[in-house]
Amino acid sequence: MRVCDLIERKRDRGRLAPDEIRTLIAAYTRGDVPAYQMSALLMAIYLNGMDDAELTAWTQAMLYSGKVLDLGHIQGAKVDKHSTGGVGDKISLPLAPLVAACGLKVPMVSGRGLGHTGGTLDKLESITGFRTDLPTERFIEMVDQLGLSLIGQTAEIAPADKKLYALRDVTGTVSSIPLIASSIMSKKMAEGIDALVLDVKVGSGAFMRTVEEARVLARTMVAVGEGMGRRVVALLTDMDQPLGLTCGNALEVVEAIDILRGGGPADVRELTLTLARVMLELGGADPDEAERALDDGRALARFRTVVEAQGGDPHLVDHPEKLPKAPKIEPFLAPRAGYVSAIDTRMVGLAALVLGAGRQQAEDAVDPRVGLVLAHRLGDYVEAGEPLLWIHHADVGVDDARRRLEAAWQIGDAPPAVRPLVLDRIG
Amino acid sequence: MRVCDLIERKRDRGRLAPDEIRTLIAAYTRGDVPAYQMSALLMAIYLNGMDDAELTAWTQAMLYSGKVLDLGHIQGAKVDKHSTGGVGDKISLPLAPLVAACGLKVPMVSGRGLGHTGGTLDKLESITGFRTDLPTERFIEMVDQLGLSLIGQTAEIAPADKKLYALRDVTGTVSSIPLIASSIMSKKMAEGIDALVLDVKVGSGAFMRTVEEARVLARTMVAVGEGMGRRVVALLTDMDQPLGLTCGNALEVVEAIDILRGGGPADVRELTLTLARVMLELGGADPDEAERALDDGRALARFRTVVEAQGGDPHLVDHPEKLPKAPKIEPFLAPRAGYVSAIDTRMVGLAALVLGAGRQQAEDAVDPRVGLVLAHRLGDYVEAGEPLLWIHHADVGVDDARRRLEAAWQIGDAPPAVRPLVLDRIG
Repeated sequence: MRVCDLIERKRDRGRLAPDEIRTLIAAYTRGDVPAYQMSALLMAIYLNGMDDAELTAWTQAMLYSGKVLDLGHIQGAKVDKHSTGGVGDKISLPLAPLVAACGLKVPMVSGRGLGHTGGTLDKLESITGFRTDLPTERFIEMVDQLGLSLIGQTAEIAPADKKLYALRDVTGTVSSIPLIASSIMSKKMAEGIDALVLDVKVGSGAFMRTVEEARVLARTMVAVGEGMGRRVVALLTDMDQPLGLTCGNALEVVEAIDILRGGGPADVRELTLTLARVMLELGGADPDEAERALDDGRALARFRTVVEAQGGDPHLVDHPEKLPKAPKIEPFLAPRAGYVSAIDTRMVGLAALVLGAGRQQAEDAVDPRVGLVLAHRLGDYVEAGEPLLWIHHADVGVDDARRRLEAAWQIGDAPPAVRPLVLDRIG
Repeated sequence: MRVCDLIERKRDRGRLAPDEIRTLIAAYTRGDVPAYQMSALLMAIYLNGMDDAELTAWTQAMLYSGKVLDLGHIQGAKVDKHSTGGVGDKISLPLAPLVAACGLKVPMVSGRGLGHTGGTLDKLESITGFRTDLPTERFIEMVDQLGLSLIGQTAEIAPADKKLYALRDVTGTVSSIPLIASSIMSKKMAEGIDALVLDVKVGSGAFMRTVEEARVLARTMVAVGEGMGRRVVALLTDMDQPLGLTCGNALEVVEAIDILRGGGPADVRELTLTLARVMLELGGADPDEAERALDDGRALARFRTVVEAQGGDPHLVDHPEKLPKAPKIEPFLAPRAGYVSAIDTRMVGLAALVLGAGRQQAEDAVDPRVGLVLAHRLGDYVEAGEPLLWIHHADVGVDDARRRLEAAWQIGDAPPAVRPLVLDRIG
């Protein structure tokens, strides 16, 4: 195989054969293909695409570049959820214990926040003592015995994806649907799952701005997953405003616990239950069990058990007011009266980031205490000078955050059309 | 400037500003932009193109990455010719002394053969003692005093192009019109010329297979040259068969000397005179002088002087039969009777290559003695078993060459339509 031939073929809109893709990805991961050839190929893929067969081969090659968990000895359907990333998206925290409480196994490998998006690991780590770097054996044991475990990606999972992602990040080849889809799916397939629910975010706080783009990504991921013999459903869900009322790590844990207690914002409860029902459906369980397990406290109990099993203080689950708190809280006021007509949700995420809730770069630390708490959502009528939201801060980035929030919120004279939370289902 | 922003903009079909291009090329040449970013950008340029302003800026940035000769103190118009490369193209050898004999200055920087194409330097070096690596000062002195000098590219000329070309060669980004045009023009502009004639080859032995592609490349190069204040004319000329009857270094020198003596194949004479007339026209001299200077021996005398000035044996110019000869000559026979209806000229070039006349890679050595001498050209009627050409070899690559020649020659029942040698003029 001459790499240059593959580059030229993709450049000329040709197809790469599965064995060519396997050989290429293996050689690149070993360091036998230079980055300058891979980046030229990535740009050709960005501009000319990959078909389903190429994409499945590419995903499998990344998957088998590392360790693939074998959960075959564990009874019950292994089902996970993946979100493409948004602002205020704390759904994994109530969802995983809820689905586990209904009898499925949830081997959940999550990520950290980057840029305007938050990450499940950062949220969990605001619970004192909570460890997300468990050894693989312990992770498997927890999935078997407790029905779930929540950890971060290890170096053993899809190292080809890790290396490719770093290259894409500096060569303008991140926002390619086949490359995004194969990156996500190779990592999720490494979890040894039977089925997967994809929460594809759409809107001003998402990577996919339009329903059309999101639908293409969703279809692509569903096709890859099905091509690899898994049951996969994708929901397109709204990200034109933050999910729930909180953005920031400890703040979101509090909101997640509210959901597990049967309370919390309606949209967070709705999305948690919707995703849980699809997971139960794919795992062959009764979807109606989700609401019962949420309302009778079984999901909360399971969360408490998992927190304790991963080294966290279970006491905090019953006393979330004892989670880390920002030293200062100040309001961000509505500049005029009217309806909240649009929110640049990415800007809201970046405002939380500059307060310390997120990361510019992968190696940055986060402050679990800081973030934003919304007092209003899209369509609400506000008076001039009324708080639109509350800034929880530690005297870092407040002016910068305010500037971003000013740019993010639009107040208009008429109520906007607010679309439903779940926009479409693929698969 | 973030390189990633430039990559993304070109990926999305945007335009790069001249100062961005300048900064980028300078940083890449210094080693401050990694190859993997440049190769992603090159692929985006390959697929999305560059407009005239970008192309001129790109060419200038490469030009000024190195030394630009200043020939301002030399009397007379400085005019050069560049061929995009073909098989049997020995035109520079008679052309440069002919035009110099007519009073123009010809500062000719040439290349070596690579792949199926031959190179002027290799041909010249089959003349015992001929040096093509003169110091720049000597080159300038010769142009001033003798009207011409024939050397190879120095490390000082357009180092950005050298580095970029090496990267393009391994990343599938060679055959891009704007990148080819800027590569050629940056090197030619570094010669300090006032005007340039481009011989854009078209056909089975050329990089441009169709007149349409060749016309686009020609127009692009003319636009770049004019954008940089030079007079530029491009001729599209036929490369559906080798030029003249010889392919191979010493063999081509013999043919070139035949031309300078007023003989030689009609097509080589025609193209030499046609290109000379355009060079004279662009240099403000009388085009009719070309034929006179060829036929009265002035061009031959000038060639002899240059050979001697560059260390070659001038005696060989008058006794070309003493040039290096292959130890063996054997015929390649027509497999059937009929008209020579098509020649895969690239294959003919590759046949000469495997005999040792050319290079697979830049560092390979060539054998000056070997090559091919055609007995027939397109449209000739041949009998079965009659020699189509003669293989001059040194027991290297003969079987391989024969296989390629078998694939290259087509004999048909009807005479083919043979197109004129000069197909179009741009500028």
